[in-house]
Amino acid sequence: MHPLVTLTTDFGTRDSYTAELKGVLYSEGPPDLRVVDLSHELPPFDVEFAARFVQRAVSQFPPETVHVVVVDPGVGSARQPLVVEVGRKLLVGPDNGVFSLLFDGSERVFALDPARASERVLSSTFHGRDLFAPAAARLAGGAPCTALGTLTRLYERLQPRLPEREVDGWLGQITHVDRYGNLITNITASELAALGDRAAVRVECAGAALALRAHYAEVAPGELLCLVGSSGQLELSARETSAAEKLAAGVGSCVRVTKRG
Amino acid sequence: MHPLVTLTTDFGTRDSYTAELKGVLYSEGPPDLRVVDLSHELPPFDVEFAARFVQRAVSQFPPETVHVVVVDPGVGSARQPLVVEVGRKLLVGPDNGVFSLLFDGSERVFALDPARASERVLSSTFHGRDLFAPAAARLAGGAPCTALGTLTRLYERLQPRLPEREVDGWLGQITHVDRYGNLITNITASELAALGDRAAVRVECAGAALALRAHYAEVAPGELLCLVGSSGQLELSARETSAAEKLAAGVGSCVRVTKRG
Amino acid sequence: MHPLVTLTTDFGTRDSYTAELKGVLYSEGPPDLRVVDLSHELPPFDVEFAARFVQRAVSQFPPETVHVVVVDPGVGSARQPLVVEVGRKLLVGPDNGVFSLLFDGSERVFALDPARASERVLSSTFHGRDLFAPAAARLAGGAPCTALGTLTRLYERLQPRLPEREVDGWLGQITHVDRYGNLITNITASELAALGDRAAVRVECAGAALALRAHYAEVAPGELLCLVGSSGQLELSARETSAAEKLAAGVGSCVRVTKRG
Repeated sequence: MHPLVTLTTDFGTRDSYTAELKGVLYSEGPPDLRVVDLSHELPPFDVEFAARFVQRAVSQFPPETVHVVVVDPGVGSARQPLVVEVGRKLLVGPDNGVFSLLFDGSERVFALDPARASERVLSSTFHGRDLFAPAAARLAGGAPCTALGTLTRLYERLQPRLPEREVDGWLGQITHVDRYGNLITNITASELAALGDRAAVRVECAGAALALRAHYAEVAPGELLCLVGSSGQLELSARETSAAEKLAAGVGSCVRVTKRG
Repeated sequence: MHPLVTLTTDFGTRDSYTAELKGVLYSEGPPDLRVVDLSHELPPFDVEFAARFVQRAVSQFPPETVHVVVVDPGVGSARQPLVVEVGRKLLVGPDNGVFSLLFDGSERVFALDPARASERVLSSTFHGRDLFAPAAARLAGGAPCTALGTLTRLYERLQPRLPEREVDGWLGQITHVDRYGNLITNITASELAALGDRAAVRVECAGAALALRAHYAEVAPGELLCLVGSSGQLELSARETSAAEKLAAGVGSCVRVTKRG
Repeated sequence: MHPLVTLTTDFGTRDSYTAELKGVLYSEGPPDLRVVDLSHELPPFDVEFAARFVQRAVSQFPPETVHVVVVDPGVGSARQPLVVEVGRKLLVGPDNGVFSLLFDGSERVFALDPARASERVLSSTFHGRDLFAPAAARLAGGAPCTALGTLTRLYERLQPRLPEREVDGWLGQITHVDRYGNLITNITASELAALGDRAAVRVECAGAALALRAHYAEVAPGELLCLVGSSGQLELSARETSAAEKLAAGVGSCVRVTKRG
């Protein structure tokens, strides 16, 4: 298989940063390399947002793909540069927790040694170009993690906020609002299933009560509903319009799920 | 030739949907697959807009390219998933008319059979990832349409609004405003040509009269003009500035073309 | 190595222009072609902005890469279409200065001959699709520049504004504001170094005095600083926030660099 390197950044594409990153990968990577844009539109400096994005996106890619993630507010500080191997996935980027939602205890984390991972002089502001891309190019060419860095046990982990158990259900939160105005929560399908039959579940958010459905088509256009979304989590939606606007809710808003009387 | 799959969606790239789609294609497609972004910035749920985009974009690609189009307000309803073969082009997406501007009577339309097109469990909200991408990966790997679905004669067609014939010309409409503020109409070059010499044609829109020219450079910067654009249709433009702003016109605005006295 | 063609435009991706360009490249280019998006989000018609982007981006790519640049306010006028060869890089686009920041006296510039570079009928508004992409496809397939055009000595050069020497330092300007609000100046690291030790340098902009540092981490989050950025030029920044907003400064704002006391 032709080697794959994916890119996930908060660079945008109006500046030249993303283009420079690709130039380095094609210059230093194997001759049949395929570079794949995942996103360059992540919110600047938002490591938690990026971590959730990475968790969902990386899970769909084939093993051996190298994923470069550069959301790096700490560039130029003492934060470590990392290569991570977890479930036959390879990830390169800063040690700020951006990979940690993929950690399952089996991860092997390496502190990148700039002298072994790149021949470039490190600028103080752009390790994506000067360190992460060269390291990814070497990995895509077949270099083992051990050639680029040293195994470490000291690395950051995010603590994602989990829903709280209540007497008759769960108190969760909106963690993401997507382009369509769907509100994605931190309540999982299995937490919902534990409450019993779908018809018996009541969902409340921002003063409104929503019924749990299987498909958008079960309600009229414009109407609110909730369902288990494509990430296996409870989502609040409005058919063909924005639930975020209809509910005036957003990231951090509370969602209560209860078993009906 | 290395197989090509193109992507056209209204997903944006701030959410992980586009990235997940690509992951599935690279996981399930042939080892030398090339995935090509056409757009992820189509207006959400706007099937007509997407249909015009697809018509123009697809026409430039080589035969055998597989085009995945996911503008799918009806996901989770009874709308069919389709594979279409027309003019040696292959298209995968929902049955909502998004392919229909390419139809010329020779099209062969297949209702996708999820059980044959994908090994994934279908989520209720993301058939792009769970059905269309797996089907496209199979087609890119050489599977025939007949392996993925069943020939059907029941499928949606959009009825694009055509210009109306008037005594001395045509009454058309703006169908698209591009990034530069050019106003693209539904009046074709051949309809214009039927009115005779370019100098004899008069174009009116939003209370202004515009001359038909061959090139932007025939007018001064900032000045209005109209010409036959790159899609073979009449366009209203202002040199190096926005005709949409200068005319306060947009999609749906009327454009009258007449033969001068 | 599989041939590479990069794309840099002001087209956006909501219209079909970028997609059409790619279709032509894949239709007319070699069977293992890789097309790489650098940017489609450059400000419309801003040739200087594009020239700076191209200068930075192209420098990171391997030799033999073909770079298509379409920021072309003069399309349809008498401006020449060009192929440029400089430092083993190949560039295709309009003659408006967009390549000129790469010129070092060794460049070879060819006026493209549409009849030899493309088999397409030239539209009046979209030479990217009808001329530049076909020419790039031929170059990527191994055609020499001489097969597509004629060597010329008449071509545009931008005159980038340079900082002015003052008695005790330099008076420069902000040339770019990036996505994070960093203010990039036209003062180079070597001009700074000539003033002596970093601690002895004083930077003023918009009424504020900033200290020259090596890394963001030397100041507290939210605080202003300046440093030599990844392009080798003086940048004014605020750690993890926007210096442009904090200073109310932008492109064209003056920056004075002096040697302290």
